[in-house]
Amino acid sequence: MARGNDMAKEVEWRIKVEEDDDTLQKTIVGCMWAVTAGLALKLCKFVKKAWEVGVNDPRKFIHCLKVGIALSAVSLFYYWKPLYDGVGGNAMWAVMTVVVVFEYTAGATICKTVNRMCGTSLAGFLGIGVHWVASRAGEQWEPVIAGVSVFLLASAATFSRFIPSLKARFDYGILIFILTFSLVSISGYRVDELLVMAQYRVCTIIIGSIMCIIVSVIIRPIWAGFELFVLVTGNLDKLANSLRCCVVQYFGGSEASEAESDEVSDKKLLGYKCVLSSKATEETMANFARWEPAHGRFNFRHPWRQYVKIGASMRSCASCLDALIGCINSDNQASDDMKKNMSSISMKVGANCASVIRELATTIRKMKKSSKLDILVTQMNSAAQELRSLLNSCPYLVNPPHNSKRSTRTETASPDDLAPKIEIPLMEIIQVVTVASLLIEIVARVEDIVENVEELSDLANFQPEMNVKSKQHTSDSKVSPDQQNDGEPVRTLQMV
Amino acid sequence: MARGNDMAKEVEWRIKVEEDDDTLQKTIVGCMWAVTAGLALKLCKFVKKAWEVGVNDPRKFIHCLKVGIALSAVSLFYYWKPLYDGVGGNAMWAVMTVVVVFEYTAGATICKTVNRMCGTSLAGFLGIGVHWVASRAGEQWEPVIAGVSVFLLASAATFSRFIPSLKARFDYGILIFILTFSLVSISGYRVDELLVMAQYRVCTIIIGSIMCIIVSVIIRPIWAGFELFVLVTGNLDKLANSLRCCVVQYFGGSEASEAESDEVSDKKLLGYKCVLSSKATEETMANFARWEPAHGRFNFRHPWRQYVKIGASMRSCASCLDALIGCINSDNQASDDMKKNMSSISMKVGANCASVIRELATTIRKMKKSSKLDILVTQMNSAAQELRSLLNSCPYLVNPPHNSKRSTRTETASPDDLAPKIEIPLMEIIQVVTVASLLIEIVARVEDIVENVEELSDLANFQPEMNVKSKQHTSDSKVSPDQQNDGEPVRTLQMV
Repeated sequence: MARGNDMAKEVEWRIKVEEDDDTLQKTIVGCMWAVTAGLALKLCKFVKKAWEVGVNDPRKFIHCLKVGIALSAVSLFYYWKPLYDGVGGNAMWAVMTVVVVFEYTAGATICKTVNRMCGTSLAGFLGIGVHWVASRAGEQWEPVIAGVSVFLLASAATFSRFIPSLKARFDYGILIFILTFSLVSISGYRVDELLVMAQYRVCTIIIGSIMCIIVSVIIRPIWAGFELFVLVTGNLDKLANSLRCCVVQYFGGSEASEAESDEVSDKKLLGYKCVLSSKATEETMANFARWEPAHGRFNFRHPWRQYVKIGASMRSCASCLDALIGCINSDNQASDDMKKNMSSISMKVGANCASVIRELATTIRKMKKSSKLDILVTQMNSAAQELRSLLNSCPYLVNPPHNSKRSTRTETASPDDLAPKIEIPLMEIIQVVTVASLLIEIVARVEDIVENVEELSDLANFQPEMNVKSKQHTSDSKVSPDQQNDGEPVRTLQMV
Repeated sequence: MARGNDMAKEVEWRIKVEEDDDTLQKTIVGCMWAVTAGLALKLCKFVKKAWEVGVNDPRKFIHCLKVGIALSAVSLFYYWKPLYDGVGGNAMWAVMTVVVVFEYTAGATICKTVNRMCGTSLAGFLGIGVHWVASRAGEQWEPVIAGVSVFLLASAATFSRFIPSLKARFDYGILIFILTFSLVSISGYRVDELLVMAQYRVCTIIIGSIMCIIVSVIIRPIWAGFELFVLVTGNLDKLANSLRCCVVQYFGGSEASEAESDEVSDKKLLGYKCVLSSKATEETMANFARWEPAHGRFNFRHPWRQYVKIGASMRSCASCLDALIGCINSDNQASDDMKKNMSSISMKVGANCASVIRELATTIRKMKKSSKLDILVTQMNSAAQELRSLLNSCPYLVNPPHNSKRSTRTETASPDDLAPKIEIPLMEIIQVVTVASLLIEIVARVEDIVENVEELSDLANFQPEMNVKSKQHTSDSKVSPDQQNDGEPVRTLQMV
């Protein structure tokens, strides 16, 4: 009985275990499916995001193919026997050079290759010299002399990387200098034919570098200078759009929002944020651009640093615009009367500023001194002056007396003229007043941009645009900012 | 005779040549001296500049010595025979790793070493796999398969470097992946003992990496996280100083400038520019900081990204301050009466904002929830509200009627009360009004910073400061901003 009982229990247990096994197995399989599906989903999302990055800027795909081509070309050192017999295992250095040195823009690639070649050569000579001295000093002293020289030179070279002027241009070269010097003078202790080895390495590095430069410059080159140029002109347009959009939204009210969907106008309004955040990119691009040879319309000594200055003055203007937009979005709503009074002149100031900024973008884009710029700046300044004199006569709008200043303007002549005095608290007009005041400040900062662009046009010898002047002069001076295209930069002149 | 004549001429010529030689020699020597002196002068200037860079931050000297120490330590692979017998020429990779990977902050070093180790190992495995497949395919197909795989993988990996999330963390790892994979699968065609070679290389790279981490973390470590922490708190202080300084200079007038020299106060006033330009540094530091282990008061998962957010809200506040300073420096000077009227409340708002910002800096510095912060924020808001109601009653200051709002304030009770109405143009008050309006906007933006700092204190589990509260509560709430130290951050609490 006892045994039968035991057996029954055992059978029961087995069934249970098998059942457990079954559930366990199912759970494991389920979990694995879930994990796989989760990973696959993540991977899909990632691939989609990556694809979007590439589709937004197809030059990124081209860059990747260029890296592949340069690597394949340099790998011939291994695959093609005559070449491999020439350099042997040192072919590795050519491959390494291509991988490490090939950058997105031609300027960055050239900067790195030149740095690498110079750093390697200089350190190679110095290392062989130190090795020669050390080897004369006898077996005992050789590692000491080599070790101490590596310690001192590496420390000094590392320190020089902290100096801003060297860091901007030769950071990579100094790193390679330390690397090569250490390798040559340390491994000199063990390697017999140091001179031959160093020679091969320098040769393969130079070959790899030259290959990088050729592929980078010949196949659809991406110039750092041109990128900087596009960035700055694009930012100018964005700033103009933001400024225009902000003024129109505030003073234009419902009319403006009907014309464009909210999303589009919000995107335009916030374009100035790109201006605020592009400092680092501008500086990097300007540093790389000066390594580039003449390309397109840019000659070798194009004043790239001036674009950084233009960028700085744009940011100063954008931060004022940021404050303006902040004030507009604050709780202190302005009285509609006051807003209506200021509306036409404020919109004129905003539109004129935007026109000037767009004209600056066009000037840089065409690399011709603009014939319209002076007129536009004058218009902007006179609009600002009008705004000032409107403000100057403003309390009289609320409490209107008979005043000589009134005669200069017509838009304020209203039936209020003979009405009793109306008093409104300052708080109701503070927003409009602040907007007006910031607009005047923005005009001053736009003039800074104008100055910087004019300096650029002098430094880069922009030619005046003669044809346009004679043909369009009469019509240009009559263009009122309100007639101009709201959102897009003025492109008509580009077709000339 | 003819001969004598010839001789005389020859002698004459010789003397002339000797004279010419003499002048030429003198000129050359002079030139060389001038060039040498010029170079020496330049070198002197350069060394002086470099020395200043180091003296300003002695940790830079220490970093250089650390690089020297790590290099010397790793060079033992060559100098110590048992070690060299173990790895042979592959010791080169340890030296290379140290030179390339050792960075200024511990976070950057760890990030690069981990990237290098992972990239090398992964690419090594994959490369050997591809080599195995290629070698099965026969002599003819081997280079084709290897070449195509290098082309495809290098292109794909290069593309992945464009994806922002990967670029921020694994940029260097992907570069090393491409490098190792290319080297392994290309050189596999020529090298016989690929597996052994790969093994040695991975080993030496790991040894070099570990040595870097040890030297970087043990000898006077420079933590990226701590640098970020110091940068953000320092920027908060600079912002507070600029704000206070700007308001005091504008409203305080001559009293303020007597207290401090122009240079000192100008430096304080322009401190906010550091805030505007530190975006890139903050982001780099935050990226490196998350690789760092727990150190000092920071644990491993300290919310470093939150500091970047705080930085962004500081920049938004700083750009408003930039607009404010621009308006103050503009031509539209305000009438003194109006300025005097607004002066005391505006200075209170400015001082309160500065106190709040300084308290935020102290909160972050001490990593304790501040007991004073709420009170200070309330004070700031009520000061802003006072400013608003002053503005609300402002036209009545010019044309004073009997108004119920007057009863809330005492400072406007003046003999004007019964005087006839005075009318002034809006232009004369526009600057003061704009300054007031921007101050109100700055208050709103300071509240953004407060929110972000409070989020940080929640994320990082800051403890409330109990002792200070019970001891200082009564006195704290009575501290008026005017009594506080003008320039320096409030450091009294730090001594607790």
